[in-house]
Amino acid sequence: MKRAVVLLSGGLDSATTLAICVREGFEPYALSFDYGQRHNIETLAAERVAASLGAREHRIAGIDLRIFGGSALTDEIPVPKNQDGKNMSDIPITYVPARNTIFLSYALAWCEVLGAIDIFIGANAIDYSGYPDCRPAFIAAFEDLAGLATKAGVEGARFHIHAPLLAMSKAQIIEKGIELDVDFSLTHSCYDPTTDLLACGVCDSCRIRLEGFRSAGRKDPIPYATR
Amino acid sequence: MKRAVVLLSGGLDSATTLAICVREGFEPYALSFDYGQRHNIETLAAERVAASLGAREHRIAGIDLRIFGGSALTDEIPVPKNQDGKNMSDIPITYVPARNTIFLSYALAWCEVLGAIDIFIGANAIDYSGYPDCRPAFIAAFEDLAGLATKAGVEGARFHIHAPLLAMSKAQIIEKGIELDVDFSLTHSCYDPTTDLLACGVCDSCRIRLEGFRSAGRKDPIPYATR
Repeated sequence: MKRAVVLLSGGLDSATTLAICVREGFEPYALSFDYGQRHNIETLAAERVAASLGAREHRIAGIDLRIFGGSALTDEIPVPKNQDGKNMSDIPITYVPARNTIFLSYALAWCEVLGAIDIFIGANAIDYSGYPDCRPAFIAAFEDLAGLATKAGVEGARFHIHAPLLAMSKAQIIEKGIELDVDFSLTHSCYDPTTDLLACGVCDSCRIRLEGFRSAGRKDPIPYATR
Repeated sequence: MKRAVVLLSGGLDSATTLAICVREGFEPYALSFDYGQRHNIETLAAERVAASLGAREHRIAGIDLRIFGGSALTDEIPVPKNQDGKNMSDIPITYVPARNTIFLSYALAWCEVLGAIDIFIGANAIDYSGYPDCRPAFIAAFEDLAGLATKAGVEGARFHIHAPLLAMSKAQIIEKGIELDVDFSLTHSCYDPTTDLLACGVCDSCRIRLEGFRSAGRKDPIPYATR
């Protein structure tokens, strides 16, 4: 079986991406990050998802982006809530600087050790909320970089960054996940969970998730603190 | 003054690179990594060098590449010594997977927070000992990626990865450093220092350094355990 590294946040996008990786016949090596979030519920969700979908291995890389500051997800700035709609041309305060670049770099390091040339990432261009590093051109540029950065590339291998959700709506991602038997009750999306770890239901991430389930005509299986 | 992020390992290449950054009129923000080395003498050297050359700030990012294994610098594999010559087409066992990709990704994150679009790296194509991510094509590919990965890039900024040592010999780097008043006695290069933190004098890194000083007709100011 061909090995692949799968970036796994524990959210529904990356869970669906892992399921797609498995369906495509790869042996998945799941990689999560503990990057100085306020809470570790993300990595707990990632562990549950990795186990339920049969990841061959699951590693959690501790990285501390707080040393640079600059984002609501890593700083002590309050997370914005109940914003009216979203302006896709604006980059949100929850943007973490260079996050996907850093995540893909780590995936590339693990690829080199595993002898893998396939990386799966749940980046999404439609619901990307203005993150520059979720665009198709970024993904393509990283493939080029990977070929130049590595032993395997020097020896002629062509890396492939699989971003199967890139052009899908959240509703389509949910349908795809259900088709592949992803247990969304194990996933976590909230930027700002309550102290008892319930999703807040009102942050941007919760709103996009809930709207996705509504559009798909499905019920979100996770409990929320406020509805 | 224009800000720049400078990757600083504490070795003579990155010290000279920091001095070049200062000479070119940038305000330098030095970035080092504690990446699970066997010893922290590298970060201590980086602190001394950053202070002596007037870095505006110096941050040390803790990253753990040992979770992936795969290199003598991060594994518990003995560092090879006294190899006869070096074969530039071979990638050495001291290669750390995707290291420069990860380091530049962190530099890019800090750039975003600082509003900087300039990164300095002491990569060297001649003495690079077969590391794929020290080649000019890799540096150019990362510039392209940076433009696509960031808010500044989306807004039209063109990132510049300065690699001023790329085509220089070790002797030329040493001459340049002396010209710019770099105190090489503060630097550290050894892959495998003794328990009392003296450079071993026989690992690949020490051999390249010593040969560089010999070629330049200069005396290396650091003490060695064996000569």
